[in-house]
Amino acid sequence: MSGKGNQSPSDGDYVNYSHGLASLLESSGIKPGDRIRISYKGREIEGELMPKPEIGDSDVLVVKLDNGYNFGISYKKAKISLVSTSKGTISFPKASVKNHGGLPKVTMIYTGGTIGSRLDYKTGGVYMLAKPEELLYEVPEISELADMDVVPLMSVASEDMSYLEWKRIAEEAAKAANSGSTGIVITHGTDTMHYTSAALSFMLDGIGVPVVLTGAQRSSDRGSSDAFMNLFCSVAYAAKSNISGVGICMHASSSDDKCMFIRGTKARKMHTSRRDAFRPINDLPLAFIDSKGVVSPNPAASVGAAGERPRNFKPKLGFEGKTALVKIFPNSDPEVLEFYIGRGYKGIILEGTGLGHLPVSTPHKEFNWLAKVKSAVDSGAIVGITSQCIYGRTNSNVYRNLRLLSNTGAIHCGDMTPETAFVKLGWLLGNHKREEVPALLGKNLVGEINERIRYDQFLV
Amino acid sequence: MSGKGNQSPSDGDYVNYSHGLASLLESSGIKPGDRIRISYKGREIEGELMPKPEIGDSDVLVVKLDNGYNFGISYKKAKISLVSTSKGTISFPKASVKNHGGLPKVTMIYTGGTIGSRLDYKTGGVYMLAKPEELLYEVPEISELADMDVVPLMSVASEDMSYLEWKRIAEEAAKAANSGSTGIVITHGTDTMHYTSAALSFMLDGIGVPVVLTGAQRSSDRGSSDAFMNLFCSVAYAAKSNISGVGICMHASSSDDKCMFIRGTKARKMHTSRRDAFRPINDLPLAFIDSKGVVSPNPAASVGAAGERPRNFKPKLGFEGKTALVKIFPNSDPEVLEFYIGRGYKGIILEGTGLGHLPVSTPHKEFNWLAKVKSAVDSGAIVGITSQCIYGRTNSNVYRNLRLLSNTGAIHCGDMTPETAFVKLGWLLGNHKREEVPALLGKNLVGEINERIRYDQFLV
Repeated sequence: MSGKGNQSPSDGDYVNYSHGLASLLESSGIKPGDRIRISYKGREIEGELMPKPEIGDSDVLVVKLDNGYNFGISYKKAKISLVSTSKGTISFPKASVKNHGGLPKVTMIYTGGTIGSRLDYKTGGVYMLAKPEELLYEVPEISELADMDVVPLMSVASEDMSYLEWKRIAEEAAKAANSGSTGIVITHGTDTMHYTSAALSFMLDGIGVPVVLTGAQRSSDRGSSDAFMNLFCSVAYAAKSNISGVGICMHASSSDDKCMFIRGTKARKMHTSRRDAFRPINDLPLAFIDSKGVVSPNPAASVGAAGERPRNFKPKLGFEGKTALVKIFPNSDPEVLEFYIGRGYKGIILEGTGLGHLPVSTPHKEFNWLAKVKSAVDSGAIVGITSQCIYGRTNSNVYRNLRLLSNTGAIHCGDMTPETAFVKLGWLLGNHKREEVPALLGKNLVGEINERIRYDQFLV
Repeated sequence: MSGKGNQSPSDGDYVNYSHGLASLLESSGIKPGDRIRISYKGREIEGELMPKPEIGDSDVLVVKLDNGYNFGISYKKAKISLVSTSKGTISFPKASVKNHGGLPKVTMIYTGGTIGSRLDYKTGGVYMLAKPEELLYEVPEISELADMDVVPLMSVASEDMSYLEWKRIAEEAAKAANSGSTGIVITHGTDTMHYTSAALSFMLDGIGVPVVLTGAQRSSDRGSSDAFMNLFCSVAYAAKSNISGVGICMHASSSDDKCMFIRGTKARKMHTSRRDAFRPINDLPLAFIDSKGVVSPNPAASVGAAGERPRNFKPKLGFEGKTALVKIFPNSDPEVLEFYIGRGYKGIILEGTGLGHLPVSTPHKEFNWLAKVKSAVDSGAIVGITSQCIYGRTNSNVYRNLRLLSNTGAIHCGDMTPETAFVKLGWLLGNHKREEVPALLGKNLVGEINERIRYDQFLV
């Protein structure tokens, strides 16, 4: 037990550990954060002892391996010994953000999420960086691309984002554009990044500069983290691209060779954990950005070039919070529509099957949605129809059941994903008169509806 | 106007047409079903005049082109003339199903859907074939593969299917297996085919023969119809495969070169209209079937061979109809859980974001799901967590928010799609004691949960 020094572990260090495990650790002079060796069944592994999360078997100790993964084992099945003590806190390079001057000004708006997280030594999960600038310390190449301005706006996990946060982000982005930024990078958790990118696409329509959402599927203390390359490519795109408007920049493939920029209304997180989880839906990537920061617009994608930048851009921040997204499934209960109408909901996007079907001719009356959709529309709510297939577009005509549904006044949402249709409907209801909304919902406003879907836009 | 004969069109022929259009058609001697020529803007097209659906502009006449697509134009903008009169009804070959005898017996259970549909000359939509056998008339090659037994069980559109239909289909399949069929083909609409295939996978576990669901994305009177090849390949698989159990056989690609067989619990309709819409999720196709009927098991896929066929197989038909699938989205209203619990629901699958997240740490109390999930579980309901990413698997541990959620007693559903998890939960609640369900939901029973996801199982 050499090298431990004189520190005496306090009770606080062993919170959530069982009495037996805490006693063993204390008697061995081991504290969370120390590097330890675990011997079991003839094997030996080394890693940093993690603090105990509040949940789980309190006899199990967990170490973070050098490959970034965690390993847990009951202390009763293993021998443990100290290798070296913790350096106290994670050490970051002490450099500050250095701007050379004379480069394009890029504003980075920090909102939280895995890209700004590291291992949390209090809960065993992740914690947010003390300062968003820390992210930039790890990618010094960024200082060759842009003069960075970092705005620590909020620290909210992606799954906790709501339209209230979307408004704050949109306001901040508009402020940055109006103050002369060439481009804007927004770091964001990945779970709902495509909802946020859709919302910003509508709220920031006409902003005149590139607005790039980026994040990470793996936290920045893991060897396989995508945080740094995603950030680097996003800054490159924000500094150099002449395509204005909102999109997502993340890994194009699982290797670290390039990122892609996807239209904000046509993106979707399609995998829980892969680094190339974000894919364009019924669309192609608008550009690729390689690891040298070279931005290559995709000649096969149709995009407008950046317009003249407005002098005093005003975002359209309205959003009707009483907007719901409801998935249809076999035997689904149409009464749920009455639940939402009763709660004052003004808009409902239905995620139908196939071409936008609901059960409307079923022999089982309790599963028939037709009358409930009609009465929701008649009560003044806007009902939109999308497809849970995700790829492809809805159709209001091919089958009799589809025509019956259209006849209620429900609006078919074309090739929008259910998520984009939900965001668009909330935004329309927040910024337009009710009577204008049905026509606008089915009409392309900012690239969210493609008139034609190309053959190569499936499973891209 | 030659060739029209002596028939006088009755008013009934022009139902839903505007007075002006009906008058023009009558004076030109044209009835729905006749072949007409339309001249407009210097162009000419020909097709069959369709009857007018109950919905749409009554001045517009619609013709079915030779390529199977419809074309509509206002009669005020075009000149129309008769080319030839209708032959009256669509003519099918008059052959009956011919069984050579001595071939494997395959039972085809007909349930409805596009594969059994043709243009409906009354509504302008589709109608169901008068006899399911008509499908076989168009694929005479099938008589070389199997001795067919056709069971016209029901004619229900896919979107109208419920667990009540699943039970009837499962019973009929069990009956066929017990009466000596080598394999079973179930023709079904495509919209919810993957829900049905998941349900049958559980209900028919142990049936000992291949059970193949198939359908069509384009109706059989369209040149691009996939109905015939899908049916041919499905019969080939049912007759020849030594993999027992339930799956979906549809086009592997957009060309007509081969079909693939996808595990019933791992399939999903991923496109509204493409012929290759059905894809394996977190899995690989189990087999390919080419246009000659050759069945090639996929060596990269893991499947069990057919076991000995049970003598008197009994399907497990229980299903708890009070099971819901609820999608989470930003600002989503957690009160919807109370709605379902209040309606007597016993099981709820939540379609979370990313690794299976819900908003549980949001600063906006009205959007926080944590307490509502806990009280749903505490009230005795089973709550399962899936991901709307579709690909990948949920995780109960990486982030603090995930651990908070697990701590409520909600069950993570691994790499099951939300749809399969929903079906499994309803089936478990219908066949097992409540207290057994949580452990079974997270455990692989019939191939619905993969311990590992291969790199090549994304966007297959």
